[in-house]
Amino acid sequence: MQDIDIDDLAYVHISKGLDDVVVKETVLSYIDGENGRLFYVGYPIEELVEHSTYEEVCFLLLHGRLPKKDELESFTDLMKSERELPKELVAILSKIPRNSNLMDVLKFGIDYLAICDEELQSKGRVDNIVTAAKIISKSSTIVAYAFRYSEGLEIVRPSQELSHAANFLYMVTGVKPDSLSSKIMDVAFILHAEHELPASSMAALVIASTLSDLYSAISGGVGALKGPLHGGANEKALEMILSIGSPENVEGYVKQVLASKGRIMGFGHRVYKSYDPRAAIFRRYLESLSQQRGDRSFLDITKKLEEVVRRELAGKPIFPNIDLYSGAVFHMLGLSKRVFTPLFAAARTVGWAAHVLEYWRDNRLIRPRATYVGPPMRRYIPVHQR
Amino acid sequence: MQDIDIDDLAYVHISKGLDDVVVKETVLSYIDGENGRLFYVGYPIEELVEHSTYEEVCFLLLHGRLPKKDELESFTDLMKSERELPKELVAILSKIPRNSNLMDVLKFGIDYLAICDEELQSKGRVDNIVTAAKIISKSSTIVAYAFRYSEGLEIVRPSQELSHAANFLYMVTGVKPDSLSSKIMDVAFILHAEHELPASSMAALVIASTLSDLYSAISGGVGALKGPLHGGANEKALEMILSIGSPENVEGYVKQVLASKGRIMGFGHRVYKSYDPRAAIFRRYLESLSQQRGDRSFLDITKKLEEVVRRELAGKPIFPNIDLYSGAVFHMLGLSKRVFTPLFAAARTVGWAAHVLEYWRDNRLIRPRATYVGPPMRRYIPVHQR
Repeated sequence: MQDIDIDDLAYVHISKGLDDVVVKETVLSYIDGENGRLFYVGYPIEELVEHSTYEEVCFLLLHGRLPKKDELESFTDLMKSERELPKELVAILSKIPRNSNLMDVLKFGIDYLAICDEELQSKGRVDNIVTAAKIISKSSTIVAYAFRYSEGLEIVRPSQELSHAANFLYMVTGVKPDSLSSKIMDVAFILHAEHELPASSMAALVIASTLSDLYSAISGGVGALKGPLHGGANEKALEMILSIGSPENVEGYVKQVLASKGRIMGFGHRVYKSYDPRAAIFRRYLESLSQQRGDRSFLDITKKLEEVVRRELAGKPIFPNIDLYSGAVFHMLGLSKRVFTPLFAAARTVGWAAHVLEYWRDNRLIRPRATYVGPPMRRYIPVHQR
Repeated sequence: MQDIDIDDLAYVHISKGLDDVVVKETVLSYIDGENGRLFYVGYPIEELVEHSTYEEVCFLLLHGRLPKKDELESFTDLMKSERELPKELVAILSKIPRNSNLMDVLKFGIDYLAICDEELQSKGRVDNIVTAAKIISKSSTIVAYAFRYSEGLEIVRPSQELSHAANFLYMVTGVKPDSLSSKIMDVAFILHAEHELPASSMAALVIASTLSDLYSAISGGVGALKGPLHGGANEKALEMILSIGSPENVEGYVKQVLASKGRIMGFGHRVYKSYDPRAAIFRRYLESLSQQRGDRSFLDITKKLEEVVRRELAGKPIFPNIDLYSGAVFHMLGLSKRVFTPLFAAARTVGWAAHVLEYWRDNRLIRPRATYVGPPMRRYIPVHQR
C-alpha cells in the first residue's frame, strides 16, 4: 500500500481566521481602520446617518448608487408591501417555546420564507433585488413576532405609516415611537447595515458561491452573527453597564477586570485601531436620549468607562466600539436584550444580500484547503482486535 | 474632509475562491489528489467501505479513532434513539407544499431542531458529540419525512432493526431493503461523510468560528451544499444518463457537448487530478446492482461515457467523479432525484460537525477582508438634487 506523502504539507502556511486574506473586491464599504472612518459606496457614514434613511441606504447598497426621487419612493413602497409574513409562518412562530433564542427563530424563519417563495421553488434560484428587499423587510417582522409570541404577548401588525426602523420598534414594543426614537432606530439600522467582510458576511458568501440562493446565504449570515464573538457583544456590554450600576463603581470594575486579565465589553475591534465612528455616532444619540428622558445614568457610566479604560490602557489601540453605546441606547428605547442581536441581524440582511449579489456578478466557488496532520496511513483493524 | 486613501489597496492580491488557501489543520481526511486516494483519519476509504459501517465512521470522525466494541454499540444505540423528530417539527413538515426543495426543508428542519433543544436554549451553546449524533441521526428522518409528505404519501416511521443508512432508504421508499441495497446505502453514506474543506464545510466553519452553535453551522453547510456547483451534480449526472438513453447514443452526445464547449456532468474535480476513488467504489456497486437486477442499462451507458470522454480528452486530467455513478446507483435503488442532494447532506452532517468540533479546540474568529474598488469619498447629495 502506498503511504500518504505528508512531507509536502509539513510547512504549509495556515491562514487561520483568514486574517488579512482578501476574498473579493467590493464597492459596498470601506473601513479606514487607522483613522476610524467608515464609508458606504463612498459616502461617509456620518452624512448618511444625518441625511439619509435606512430604506435609502438599502437602495444604495443593493444598486451601488443613491436613488432618484421616484426610485426611492417605489423602493420604500416595495419594502412596506413586504412587511407581513406568510400565515403558515405566523402560525409556526405563534407556537415557539418561551425563551427561544430569537436568532435561531430568525434563521428558521428565513428558511421557511424560502419554502414559501414560489418563484424560488419553481426556478431553483432567484437572485434579484426584489427578493433581497423581501428578506430584508420580513426579517424585522419575524424578530418582532417571535419576540412577542415568546413573551406571551399579542403580536403587533406592521404599521404602514412608519419607516422600516420605526416600525420595528413599534412591532416589538407596541408603542408608536416619537420622532427622536424613530430617528435613533433609523440610525441604528443604518449603522448596522454593512461592514465589509465579518464572519457573517463571509458565511453568506461561501454559501452563495455554490450558486445556492439568497435565503440560504442570509440564513447562514444569521447563524454566524449569533455567535458571541460576533453579534452578541452589545448584549454583553449592556449587562456589564447594568452590573456596574453607577459611575463611581467604574474605576474599581475596570481595575479588577484588567488585573484578572479579563475583557471589558464594548472596547477593541479587529479592524478599527482608532475610535469606531459608529460608536461616536451612537454616543451622540445616547446624549440626546438621556437629555430627553432626564436620565443620565447610562451616559455617565459609559463615559466614565471610556475615560478609565483609555487612561488605564494608554498607548494601546483599544477604543470603544459600536457595542458599548448601542446596548445602552436600545435599552433606553425599551427594547429587550433578547432582540439586540436579532435587530443587528435584521439590519445587516441588506449587507449580506449586497455582498452576495456583488459576488455573483463574477462568481467563483469558494473551496479552501485543510492541511492533514493526522496519523500516517494505516490498515483498518476489526473491532474485536482493538 | 479626509480622502479615502485607496493607494495602499491598489495592488492587493485577491484569493478568489480561496484556491490553495489553507484554513486549518485537520486529522479528519486526507485527499491525495494526484494519486486519486482518500483517507479518513488515516484509513483508506476502500477499507472503511469494505469493513466498517456509517455509524463506525461517524464515531471515527467525531472521536478521531475507531471505537472499541462497547463504544460502538453505545454510539449505535445513541444514533438509533435519536431517529424520531419532535412532534411539532413533524406537524410542520406534514404541511410543506408539494415540490418544496428538500434542501430548504432540511435546513429549516435543522434550525427548528435548535429551538427544540432545551440544553442549547438554556445554555446558549452545546458543543458535544451527543448533539452532533442527534443532528446526524435526525437529518435523515427530516429528509425522508419531508419527501413523503411533499409527495402526498404517509410517512414511514424509523425502524429500530436497520442500520442508519438502510433505515434512510426504508423511510424514503417504504420498502425494507435487501442486504445488497442496505450495503450500498451504507457505502453511500460512508463515501459522502467527509471530504476535507469544500464550500459547505467552510461555511460551517465560518459560522462556528463566532462560537455560534452546531445546528447553525450544519444548517449553513446544508445551504452551501444546495448550490448546483456543489451538491447538485449527481442529480444532473442522472438526468444526463437518462437523456442519453442507451450506450450507442454516447459517442454523439459527448462529441456534441464538447463541440459546443458544454460540460459533461460527472467528470472533473477541483482537487482530484486522477480517478476519484469514490467513483471507482460506486462503479463496482453499480455492477453488483446491475447483475442482481438483471438490468445493465445504466452501467453500460456510464462505462461507455467514461471510455469516450477519456479518449476524447486524452491528456487532460479529467476523470469520472463520484457523481457520475452515485446518481445511477440511487436511481436503481428506487430513490427519487429529489432526495439525492439531501442524502448527500444528511451523510455529510458528520463531516461538518467533526470539522467544527476540531476547529473549536483552537478557535479563531474567521474575518477575511474585501478590497475597496468603489468610488472615492464623496458628499451626500439630497434626493431632489440628484
